[in-house]
Amino acid sequence: MKRLLMAAFAFSALLTTGCKEQASKKPTISETGAIFPKGELGAAENFTGKAWHTALIANDTVYNTLVGNVYFEPGARSNWHTHPAGQILIITDGAGYYQEKEQPRRTLRKGDVIKCPPNVMHWHGASADTGMQQLYILPKTEKGIVTWLQKVTEDEYNSSK
Amino acid sequence: MKRLLMAAFAFSALLTTGCKEQASKKPTISETGAIFPKGELGAAENFTGKAWHTALIANDTVYNTLVGNVYFEPGARSNWHTHPAGQILIITDGAGYYQEKEQPRRTLRKGDVIKCPPNVMHWHGASADTGMQQLYILPKTEKGIVTWLQKVTEDEYNSSK
Repeated sequence: MKRLLMAAFAFSALLTTGCKEQASKKPTISETGAIFPKGELGAAENFTGKAWHTALIANDTVYNTLVGNVYFEPGARSNWHTHPAGQILIITDGAGYYQEKEQPRRTLRKGDVIKCPPNVMHWHGASADTGMQQLYILPKTEKGIVTWLQKVTEDEYNSSK
Repeated sequence: MKRLLMAAFAFSALLTTGCKEQASKKPTISETGAIFPKGELGAAENFTGKAWHTALIANDTVYNTLVGNVYFEPGARSNWHTHPAGQILIITDGAGYYQEKEQPRRTLRKGDVIKCPPNVMHWHGASADTGMQQLYILPKTEKGIVTWLQKVTEDEYNSSK
């Protein structure tokens, strides 16, 4: 009987451990939410931290539309930049920020969609704790693609105003 | 002792049940993979089965780009149709099909990206067993949006040729 009792407790302990591991394993968005391959590391001169880029639709004269995916690791963000014909952002997982010059920083979450107007200075990136997966769409590429500007400072990144 | 033993077995049985429920519950893409709200049911004259639509970017003269999400339930598909400036499809979850007129049916999976050329007759939809989440991008909307055509027959839907 004592052996049976010990076996029962050992079994329940095993199950407890198994369930706890399932419950406590914190998923990261790169493990569970990724729709596309992680891609190539973005250039250090245009990003702070690690931003991974996968091109999905290359530029051509039929669609004149560029589409790609960026995975920003926690804390990573783009430099300030502009697009001559604007940009559409679609957040597919995680959390992050978007800010236009002289506007408050906006919080982004899975399912959010942003229209960034032509020639408006802006940046986007992940929150400090959670990465962010985003699709970008650049329309009217005959007008140009992007003009990269200065880095987003720590003060700018951390200011919610 | 007997009461303790029974309690231990009851505890382990409870845990077993808990783990089994976690392991055997088959996730559906509408429960776990949805990035956007399910949206509005597509018009019966343009779709076979249930296709749910969420508009993400409305048409305007700045971007001239329409973006939306469609969730096709298993077996659901669009009619044959054309777009005057083409269409880009991005599969974000599930599995389905895409076919251009007089071309073989292509299988689509999460992460696939399709360019459908201007004025090419085509249809898209879910596989028979698994639904499909897709984003669509319509560029150059100044040229028009869509021309809806006839239904995709059961024979066309089921033919992999």
